[in-house]
This record gives sequence, structure tokens and C-alpha cells, in this order.
Amino acid sequence: MTGTTPAPRRRGRPPRAESAAAPAARDRILAAAREEFSERGYEKTSVRGIAKAAGVDSALVHHYFGTKEQVFQEAVEDVFAPALRAPDVIFEGAPEEIGERFARFLFGIWENPVTRTPLLAVMRSAVNNEVAASVLRRLVASQLLRRVAAQVGFPDAELRAELAASQLVGVAMLRYVIKLEPLASADVEVIVQRIAPVVQGHLTNP
Amino acid sequence: MTGTTPAPRRRGRPPRAESAAAPAARDRILAAAREEFSERGYEKTSVRGIAKAAGVDSALVHHYFGTKEQVFQEAVEDVFAPALRAPDVIFEGAPEEIGERFARFLFGIWENPVTRTPLLAVMRSAVNNEVAASVLRRLVASQLLRRVAAQVGFPDAELRAELAASQLVGVAMLRYVIKLEPLASADVEVIVQRIAPVVQGHLTNP
Repeated sequence: MTGTTPAPRRRGRPPRAESAAAPAARDRILAAAREEFSERGYEKTSVRGIAKAAGVDSALVHHYFGTKEQVFQEAVEDVFAPALRAPDVIFEGAPEEIGERFARFLFGIWENPVTRTPLLAVMRSAVNNEVAASVLRRLVASQLLRRVAAQVGFPDAELRAELAASQLVGVAMLRYVIKLEPLASADVEVIVQRIAPVVQGHLTNP
Repeated sequence: MTGTTPAPRRRGRPPRAESAAAPAARDRILAAAREEFSERGYEKTSVRGIAKAAGVDSALVHHYFGTKEQVFQEAVEDVFAPALRAPDVIFEGAPEEIGERFARFLFGIWENPVTRTPLLAVMRSAVNNEVAASVLRRLVASQLLRRVAAQVGFPDAELRAELAASQLVGVAMLRYVIKLEPLASADVEVIVQRIAPVVQGHLTNP
């Protein structure tokens, strides 16, 4: 059984011997970070709290991720992964239906409570904290919206992509966060039918 | 100078003798509440903090307003007053231009920093706290959106009014809160030109 007893934890960079267990510890920290940020929001979450939830020393969190902002960025990338890794077909199919494909894709993520909860937590954090907002801005703008804009043949393609996103974000706010009725209980298909042409219009209307 | 020396403050309902000064104290508390909620959001604001900022005893806050939720509701009504007291002409002018009138009216409020700041604070509070969300829901739904819906001759007028609002809320989120570029710096007139037809469409498209 030589070598299987874990060394006592200590501050500072983990010793090289820990490297074999690294991916597991890193994943555990990331899962804990998602959980903590989802539950408490950016401001109330601390690196110490994430470390505690993951059962590791704070130093290990700093070692793998750096600052709290950087842990948040990784957690958000993780949360947004389903959206950011949107299949190419959404962007590259018939241009006159990109609005519907984009809307259906995002509502698919929002309607599923498993993917919705962390997404809403990220939105809440961004609304309350400038650092969290800037992380969201970088990620969403540089990844998702740039892909949308690339399909739009207008000089103001970026503005158009953002206006399209604004319609989707607004529905998400009123339906899932503020829970305004009748919007909150309306059939998602009814909403997609109303929203898809708007998203399309923002992207491709002359 | 008899009677002008203020009596020492004490807990409990204010004595009747204070009534003459009541409007001033009430206004001071409301102003302090707006300030506190704007700065800290709903969750971090306390009745004690509002009382302190207004220079009165907490009991006086409870006396005039009741619970923290009720103070918040009054403060929000105050913040939303410009929007909730939208002139009739917005709703009662030519129906085919209600989208543009509604959009211009709301952007007028958002573009003015004096009216924007407390509005954003209310949005932030509502995103973070269910009590604040329910206050916003009641006020906006029962006052502003009902007036919009009343002008729409469809059975699903309420849903239409909420979808129209969702486009406006989404732009506000991305432009003023998340500050996504180029949307955040775009000329407001350009945005109104893009958004007004969408608002109109939600309200009156077949």
C-alpha cells in the first residue's frame, strides 16, 4: 500500500506528486465553483468557500484557476458550454431561418431546468457585479454572438446580433426571472412562433 | 419660540403632536429608502439603515410604511412614477404607431441618468429577490402593461403586451446593465428605429 496514503494538505502550490490526481481535483473544484456561484452569486462567493465545498485547500483553487474572477470565468464557460458549443448547423443552415433555429436552440437550454438554473445564476451575477458582467460580455460576445454575426451580410452585423440577443434575453428575464404572467406559463411553442420572426428580422431585415 | 423644540425621539408610534411635521418626515424616509435600495439593492437594505439615513427612528419608518417590502413597494412606485404615469396620448394615439410611441417614451426614461439609475436598481433587486420581483410584477403588470394591452384588439392582448415589454427590457439589459458593445454606445435613435417596429409587431401583427 506504499504511496497511497495522501500527504497532509499544506499551503502553496501542490507538490508534483499530486499531479496524477490533478484532473479529479480540478473537476471537483470547478463543480463546487458552479454550485457556489449558482447559489450565492458572484459577490457572495469566496475562493475559500469554493475550496471548502470541494474539500481542498484554497491554495489549490488559486493554483488551478488563479483569482476569483478567473474561477468564475471557467465556471461560466462551463455553464455556457452548451450554448457556446452550439452546433454549426444552427449558423450555417438556410439564412432565412437562422432566427428560428437560434431561438429554438436557446429555448431548448432555458426550458430544461438542469441547464436553466446555472444560466440564470450567471445572469443574476452579471446584473449585480461589474466583474461578472465583463466575463459574460467577453464570453457571449466573443463566442456566441460573433458566430451569429458572421452569418449576417450587413456592415452592422454585430449590432444586429446583439439586438437579436436582446429579444431573447428580454423574454428570458420576464418569463424565467420576473415570472410575469401570462408569459411565464405560456406554451414555449407559442413563444417561439412569436420570437423567431423578430430574431430573424433583427438579423436579416434590410 | 414655544413648541418649536423637537421632542426627544422615542420608540413606538409617533405622538399626534408630530403630525404637522409628518409629510416632511415621510418624504425624507421615502427619499432615503430610494437611495438605500438603489445603492444596496433589496436584500442588503434594512429598515434600520433607511431610518438612519433619514435621521429618524426605525419605528417611524414602520409607522408610515409598514414592513420592508411595503417601503420597497412605495419606493418602487416612486421610481416608476414617470413610467407608470405615462401620458394617455402614448396609449390613445394612432394604434399603428403605438410601438414607436411606447419605445420612445421608455428610452426617454432610460437615457436620462437621473431616471435610469433608480430604474436599474429596481431591476437588479427584482433579479435577485423574489419579494422585489413580485412588487415589480404587480406594479408593472397592473399599471403599465394593462394600459398597453387595453389598446390591443386581440384575445391574447396581455401576452402581446408582455412580449413587447420583453424586447424593451432585453435592450435595457444589454445596453445599460451588461453594456455589450456596439449596442451600449449606439445612437439611441438607431435603436429606436430597430426596436419600435418589433414592439409594434408584437402588439398588432395578426
